[in-house]
Amino acid sequence: MLRTHNCGELNLTHLGAKVTLCGWVQRSRNMGGMTFIDLRDRYGITQLAFNMEVNATLCEQARQLGREFVIKVDGKVIERSSKNTKMATGEIEILVTAVTILNSAITPPFTIEDETDGGDDIRMKYRYLDLRRNVVKNNLLLRHRVCQETRKYLDAQDFIEVETPVLIKSTPEGARDFVVPSRMNSGEFYALPQSPQTFKQLLMVSGFDKYFQIVKCFRDEDLRADRQPEFTQIDCEMSFIEQEDILNVFEGLVKTIFQNVKNISLSNVPRMTYDNAMKYYGNDKPDIRFEMKFIELKSDTENYYVDNFATRFKVFDDAQYINAIVANGCSEYTRKQLDELTDFVKRPQVGATGLVYIRVGNDGVCKSSVDKFFDADALASIAKKCNAMPGDLILILAGPQQKTQKAMSELRLEMGNRLGLRDKNVFAPLWVLDFPLLEWNEESQRYHAMHHPFTSPKPEDIPLLETQPGNVKANAYDMVINGVELGGGSIRIYDKQLQKKMFSILGFTDEQAQSQFGFLMNAFEYGAPPHGGIAFGLDRFCSLLGGADNIRDFIAFPKNNSGRDVMIDAPSQIDDAQLKELSINVTK
Amino acid sequence: MLRTHNCGELNLTHLGAKVTLCGWVQRSRNMGGMTFIDLRDRYGITQLAFNMEVNATLCEQARQLGREFVIKVDGKVIERSSKNTKMATGEIEILVTAVTILNSAITPPFTIEDETDGGDDIRMKYRYLDLRRNVVKNNLLLRHRVCQETRKYLDAQDFIEVETPVLIKSTPEGARDFVVPSRMNSGEFYALPQSPQTFKQLLMVSGFDKYFQIVKCFRDEDLRADRQPEFTQIDCEMSFIEQEDILNVFEGLVKTIFQNVKNISLSNVPRMTYDNAMKYYGNDKPDIRFEMKFIELKSDTENYYVDNFATRFKVFDDAQYINAIVANGCSEYTRKQLDELTDFVKRPQVGATGLVYIRVGNDGVCKSSVDKFFDADALASIAKKCNAMPGDLILILAGPQQKTQKAMSELRLEMGNRLGLRDKNVFAPLWVLDFPLLEWNEESQRYHAMHHPFTSPKPEDIPLLETQPGNVKANAYDMVINGVELGGGSIRIYDKQLQKKMFSILGFTDEQAQSQFGFLMNAFEYGAPPHGGIAFGLDRFCSLLGGADNIRDFIAFPKNNSGRDVMIDAPSQIDDAQLKELSINVTK
Repeated sequence: MLRTHNCGELNLTHLGAKVTLCGWVQRSRNMGGMTFIDLRDRYGITQLAFNMEVNATLCEQARQLGREFVIKVDGKVIERSSKNTKMATGEIEILVTAVTILNSAITPPFTIEDETDGGDDIRMKYRYLDLRRNVVKNNLLLRHRVCQETRKYLDAQDFIEVETPVLIKSTPEGARDFVVPSRMNSGEFYALPQSPQTFKQLLMVSGFDKYFQIVKCFRDEDLRADRQPEFTQIDCEMSFIEQEDILNVFEGLVKTIFQNVKNISLSNVPRMTYDNAMKYYGNDKPDIRFEMKFIELKSDTENYYVDNFATRFKVFDDAQYINAIVANGCSEYTRKQLDELTDFVKRPQVGATGLVYIRVGNDGVCKSSVDKFFDADALASIAKKCNAMPGDLILILAGPQQKTQKAMSELRLEMGNRLGLRDKNVFAPLWVLDFPLLEWNEESQRYHAMHHPFTSPKPEDIPLLETQPGNVKANAYDMVINGVELGGGSIRIYDKQLQKKMFSILGFTDEQAQSQFGFLMNAFEYGAPPHGGIAFGLDRFCSLLGGADNIRDFIAFPKNNSGRDVMIDAPSQIDDAQLKELSINVTK
Repeated sequence: MLRTHNCGELNLTHLGAKVTLCGWVQRSRNMGGMTFIDLRDRYGITQLAFNMEVNATLCEQARQLGREFVIKVDGKVIERSSKNTKMATGEIEILVTAVTILNSAITPPFTIEDETDGGDDIRMKYRYLDLRRNVVKNNLLLRHRVCQETRKYLDAQDFIEVETPVLIKSTPEGARDFVVPSRMNSGEFYALPQSPQTFKQLLMVSGFDKYFQIVKCFRDEDLRADRQPEFTQIDCEMSFIEQEDILNVFEGLVKTIFQNVKNISLSNVPRMTYDNAMKYYGNDKPDIRFEMKFIELKSDTENYYVDNFATRFKVFDDAQYINAIVANGCSEYTRKQLDELTDFVKRPQVGATGLVYIRVGNDGVCKSSVDKFFDADALASIAKKCNAMPGDLILILAGPQQKTQKAMSELRLEMGNRLGLRDKNVFAPLWVLDFPLLEWNEESQRYHAMHHPFTSPKPEDIPLLETQPGNVKANAYDMVINGVELGGGSIRIYDKQLQKKMFSILGFTDEQAQSQFGFLMNAFEYGAPPHGGIAFGLDRFCSLLGGADNIRDFIAFPKNNSGRDVMIDAPSQIDDAQLKELSINVTK
């Protein structure tokens, strides 16, 4: 080793020790008689002291060291005169006796500090420098811990980690595949896996009983801030289990990770059906750090207050659906604040046509944006229906049901933000259960699998597959934390005939099903056990634990929104000879 | 859970317990009044008993169960009348009270037994059935343990696991890349990594200090039995270290794996220079389970026995190089055995033109295949030089040095096999050190990097780079066990100028070096620490631990020698629409 200690471990117990440290020059302070250098490595920062009177040559040498120089120093651990109790090494410093420059450094394009002056683009290009910053480094250390804790937990429960192949077969169902031309089988292509789904099911057919893998997956999609063409899953599958077993095992995993990585004890994870999630939160991944549930109003309009209408309110009359949320203590919102909310809901991403509000004054008197349609009694009965208290603000949207639910979900989250109800240090996990098996796709005019084609319908709903496929519920479940879908899974079909029927409902011909998934259906003929599983998005899990919104800074070398790695400049053109070997041409 | 216990855990301590088991019907024995079924799961086999007198209907039902049916049984643990002490569950059986068929099974295409009747092709096609066999299942369980032990060891030593990208940039150096057309960047391609080499070096520049990853790598090569297009490495890198540190840390890893996975305590790993490996074993990965070192004879021919020559032996006179090995106790080899050895060395893969032998009789008298050229004294002096004892057989090859060394290496291994000196349960690890930095390639008429272009020359040899590049040694090392290269690595170049010089020696123009590896050389300008690393071939490591010769059965879903996955039938053709989106055409 070139060093005796790292830069994060020396303290008063080491006083007088002769040590050798290596690291990067974080900063240098010339105080006349003394020069101090902060030496940084992965483990921390240690202060180096050079005394002009003791060794002028050495001190001069120290003054020549630029930022990010890599040096090795010999010296003695001494007590600091002005201590910094916020640092692990803040009570000592090294009185340096020798300095070796291991490598010099030109000036970095941005400062290597927690708050950097570098923009996103330059930080991506010089990712290796950005990774030197504490914030980014700590993200990757956190990711490392999450992986180790995951493996430890699952290994202790007899799960075995099996690597499934990366070069597999392209399937049209689901997202777009990345493909790999085969040189040895010209004109043919491998695909990179969107998930190891079929392989983990085959492992169950093989009797592996409990499988897991922390595995790279690939989707050639147009990218958003929180999507990457390659991402990582914690992928799991179990045999001879029911949904309840999966929920218990993986609730245990999530709790263990929170406990051992964040030192947070989660209580038992509440459960909610998909239908209730949509009804109360307009969202299949509700953020339950705060209540503010939807109150459905349309069904009550006629009963409660239609007689009090001064003039009929056409917006409500025409609406398929009307709902409300109550923002506690917001009755005094200014005109400006209310206008902001109206603007918010009218944004195309939110999609409402307008916002109705009712202020419940501290005196209990309601005033609203629709006073000319509703008298005080009508408003009071709405307030009562909403359980609104004096001082509250009721926000109401009306329109087509799905669209309005979605818009209200956005508004609810916005109000949660405004009211400080979405603290990143509070974690509210939730199981969402009983998802629909299928969803109708207007574009393709057919049903698509909501989860994937291997998800089992609830046994009691199987008869509905023929008559009302849209009403069939699945043994499918999502783990949601703070409004983020962390993972999801299902109990799988393990009967060949049912799997065939499922493919036919999804619009596959028998031939297509056989050519794409024949190996799986054939496998089901040789004794498939009941099985099910789950997959967690590791990148997102880490970003959630790290209190961040996007996943990019939890990936060592991410791609940008055009799918480019700007650091290595990939993708790039390849030689004609290489194309020829692969029997392909570029067409533009 | 559908079961209370698994099929491997019940024993006499459970007598009388009511249990529910799930699993596969391994075999069924109808004994008239009784029927016995072996129920199998991942954990073991438990015997089920059905009594015709107690419950005829149930017993009849049991007799209908075919091989590989998946069933659930309720019953009571009872003591067996005829115990099988070789099985964990061999002292008990389950007196079954109810059977549920979870899934039926058609007859498998081969028997699911340790010794199967299935050939390679059929086993690959039905890999999910082959994985049910104990031998294959145990290989994957072993692999799981190796991975967990590796992570535990490295994590405890402060290594952090970082995932590097799979979609990277194609580089012409090294083996052929698999490439991935980019839809969003048309005409451009990603490449799949042959190793994360440059990324792990960048992580060192970032200050990550100690990195590891168990990672898939890809090479589009023509395949041999022990090669796969995708394979897995234990990939590691450290900063602020010297070669000695790497050897110690990873010798520790190998010892830990042997101890915790195989319960074998390895002693300290001996070290050998590359030059000595070639001199004494003709091979840079010598199998040192047995000695049988080469004895070089050419340099002595004139001194020792030329005067005794009856006739000059042209083969020896013309040879650039002559060497011998001594096979202890083989002087009585028959004519047939010696002919076999001659045929062996003349095989094209071995490449010798003939074999000379000298029998050292039990009476000490030497007889040879070249008696007409050498008298008894000459033969005796050769035997003496070889330290051959009465009863030994001396085998001699002559010819061009490299070719003859290689041939003798093969012959030595063959003799090791014949003499039972290569016991698969004996493990002899070895560090091979001081590899040449470069090797001359006749075809391209230039030097190639023996390890890779980032390997550091030994500092004292740097001046030779200009004058005698072929004589420059590198700080490079291989871990060899039983003649198998398990891993290798090197201390890296961390100076931009030296890296540039290295690329220029390898025939890169400055522009090529900059366009392909500019990001790494640029990174070196911002303060790169001294660093080095190693990578182990996980598939091979597992196969070695499992006592197998080929890696295929230690990979869950391997490809065949044409790079095909015959189970899922990949690679395959893709839609024209997909090709169009990717801006490529298939040319044949």
